[in-house]
Amino acid sequence: METFPQRILLGPGPSIIDPRVYRALSTPITGHMDPHFLGVMKEVRSKLRRLFRADYEVTIPVSGTGSAGMEAALVNFLEPGDDVCVLSGGFFADRMVNIARRTGANVQVIETEWGLPTDPARVSRELAGKRLKMLAAVHGETSTGVLQPLEPLAAIAQKHGALFVVDTVATLGGMVIETEKIGIDVCYSGSQKCVGCPPGLAPITVSERAMSVLRARKGPVQSWYLDLSGVEKYWGTERTYHHTAPISLIYALNEALNLIEEEGLDARSARHARNIAALGAGLSALGLEPLPAREYRMPMLATVRIPAGVDDMRVRSRLLERFNIEIAGGLGAFKGKLWRIGMMGSSSSEGNLLLLLAALEILLAEEGVGRAKGAGVSAAQSALESATEAVHA
Amino acid sequence: METFPQRILLGPGPSIIDPRVYRALSTPITGHMDPHFLGVMKEVRSKLRRLFRADYEVTIPVSGTGSAGMEAALVNFLEPGDDVCVLSGGFFADRMVNIARRTGANVQVIETEWGLPTDPARVSRELAGKRLKMLAAVHGETSTGVLQPLEPLAAIAQKHGALFVVDTVATLGGMVIETEKIGIDVCYSGSQKCVGCPPGLAPITVSERAMSVLRARKGPVQSWYLDLSGVEKYWGTERTYHHTAPISLIYALNEALNLIEEEGLDARSARHARNIAALGAGLSALGLEPLPAREYRMPMLATVRIPAGVDDMRVRSRLLERFNIEIAGGLGAFKGKLWRIGMMGSSSSEGNLLLLLAALEILLAEEGVGRAKGAGVSAAQSALESATEAVHA
Repeated sequence: METFPQRILLGPGPSIIDPRVYRALSTPITGHMDPHFLGVMKEVRSKLRRLFRADYEVTIPVSGTGSAGMEAALVNFLEPGDDVCVLSGGFFADRMVNIARRTGANVQVIETEWGLPTDPARVSRELAGKRLKMLAAVHGETSTGVLQPLEPLAAIAQKHGALFVVDTVATLGGMVIETEKIGIDVCYSGSQKCVGCPPGLAPITVSERAMSVLRARKGPVQSWYLDLSGVEKYWGTERTYHHTAPISLIYALNEALNLIEEEGLDARSARHARNIAALGAGLSALGLEPLPAREYRMPMLATVRIPAGVDDMRVRSRLLERFNIEIAGGLGAFKGKLWRIGMMGSSSSEGNLLLLLAALEILLAEEGVGRAKGAGVSAAQSALESATEAVHA
Repeated sequence: METFPQRILLGPGPSIIDPRVYRALSTPITGHMDPHFLGVMKEVRSKLRRLFRADYEVTIPVSGTGSAGMEAALVNFLEPGDDVCVLSGGFFADRMVNIARRTGANVQVIETEWGLPTDPARVSRELAGKRLKMLAAVHGETSTGVLQPLEPLAAIAQKHGALFVVDTVATLGGMVIETEKIGIDVCYSGSQKCVGCPPGLAPITVSERAMSVLRARKGPVQSWYLDLSGVEKYWGTERTYHHTAPISLIYALNEALNLIEEEGLDARSARHARNIAALGAGLSALGLEPLPAREYRMPMLATVRIPAGVDDMRVRSRLLERFNIEIAGGLGAFKGKLWRIGMMGSSSSEGNLLLLLAALEILLAEEGVGRAKGAGVSAAQSALESATEAVHA
């Protein structure tokens, strides 16, 4: 008899999927040109526009995971010789650099130490007097837990007449992102984090200004699959076949978006903020030091340094085997040095954070760095009581 | 109350999904680096190798629909200036041309009239004395219904020392394809046709020879998302994170592959051949003329000319609304002129073909081109009785 583990997913995604979303996922499919499915697509586009808070016509789920969204956000608008600046302070921004370089664009990277946000004043200085077609940044960098304030960067992009491209893979659905008001031209995400759908889709929204850049290209987009000028004809009013949409995942996304609208994005954001604050209080009480400064912490991901003498893999394996809890280790330079604990979508609940803290207390004690029994849990309980909504209060 | 249509999917894909596959699809997910999921991935790779009949190490489902598989099959192995020849006689081969051109390769297209197979003697002549890095062909061209014999083309590729790349999006899982024995270097498919899984994955298998071409590239693959040198590190023994796999779809694919193995590929191929033959007999009795010559017809898709005076869209809309049956119209030059009727995976059943013929009889009579009542059904019944396994007998 095959058995399946029931994981409590507290890593940086995927997050726990609501049963209603699983039910939608297994709806018997129609064809990808079926009038019923075309109706579902239209609904999904409307809901995504509301989630992104952007009234951009081209707002669709790309048929791939978040990284496909990243690639779509870059390759559609960059051509050889174009000037693009990527603001990097982590693993996923480095991926943007990697993809941007493959377009033949001139890629300027403004590197910031991992764990710190990019300093807009420095960006202004380094870009002064330069031509710039695109400024690209990551909103919530899941490799470090840093939340990057977007408004000052948008102002810089605007000053240069550059497209502002932002990765919200980890943040969309877990906090309010005013895509259009901020002035983001291309904003993409992933389905499997705070949106609460299984992995395999990358919601993206594209301003008219960005679409006009796409339409004015000298050469074709290097990816046929991710070429938004073809994809938009299927998702838009023309309904011209491009590629077969991942129908089941789109049913699931539609239901995940229903759940977001029923909860309300403001209430959902408050829930994420409250729970990450309580988790942060508990982790601190366990002696786990957070990486980013308080004001730059993501409201859906806590990143803490692994104490000296603690075996990263042993703790995470035991969490998984004994308690069915998944958290993640560090990426790149932070491998073995960092834990990344997500409170995303359905995973963000009081019960999950209390359970994790209780389990971590036991395992840290086994590693010889335990605190008083119940220290983490009681700190989290206090935080939940005072119900502060400040991030990582 | 939201209602969902229950479609009988008899187009060129997606096909009807078995309930076991839906159940697998909605298995609660683990993380993409969870030991349990890594085990599932390993199983899927083994089963895909058996389905492709290729013992190639790099055998994985690409995280996208069939067209993403096509793009992966081309962009990983082509660089600017490379010589590639695409054999085209339909819509999907033209897509190969489109994608290949975006790599900067020199693309030679050998065009054949839609509805005819490519003539290997002509290919030999046109390629004589030329350098060739890749020869690319479509096995089952769903825009025309033509099944292309592969062995003579493999011999030509071999003579030129070229990689032989074959699209089996429509054929894999519906007939035996001896990928390795034939000498196909890169063979890709889609999950949603004869494989019987929802759309969103593109199984691909890559020979060692093709992988060495990839590893010897001068420049990076133009798509980061589809770069097999990164993807293989996640799916292979290294288990290095590349992108978040579409976990739910991989559960579904695993179960669809279980169903294929339980039925047996030989028995499954015989079922597809028997049912398309009976369908073909019925369609002929209805006066619907098949497009390809008998020996070049696909065993999972019938393509027939729409009789003069018959309104394509009216008949297809009525099929959908009154009988819940989806069939497809023509693509490109065949728009309004061709019906494409699939018998793929679970959709390939005696019941489905009899129902379709009975329904079509009614609708063709309404269009004023009816035959004797029951003509199509009785011809199909006879064909099923004689149980011939010849294609479209």
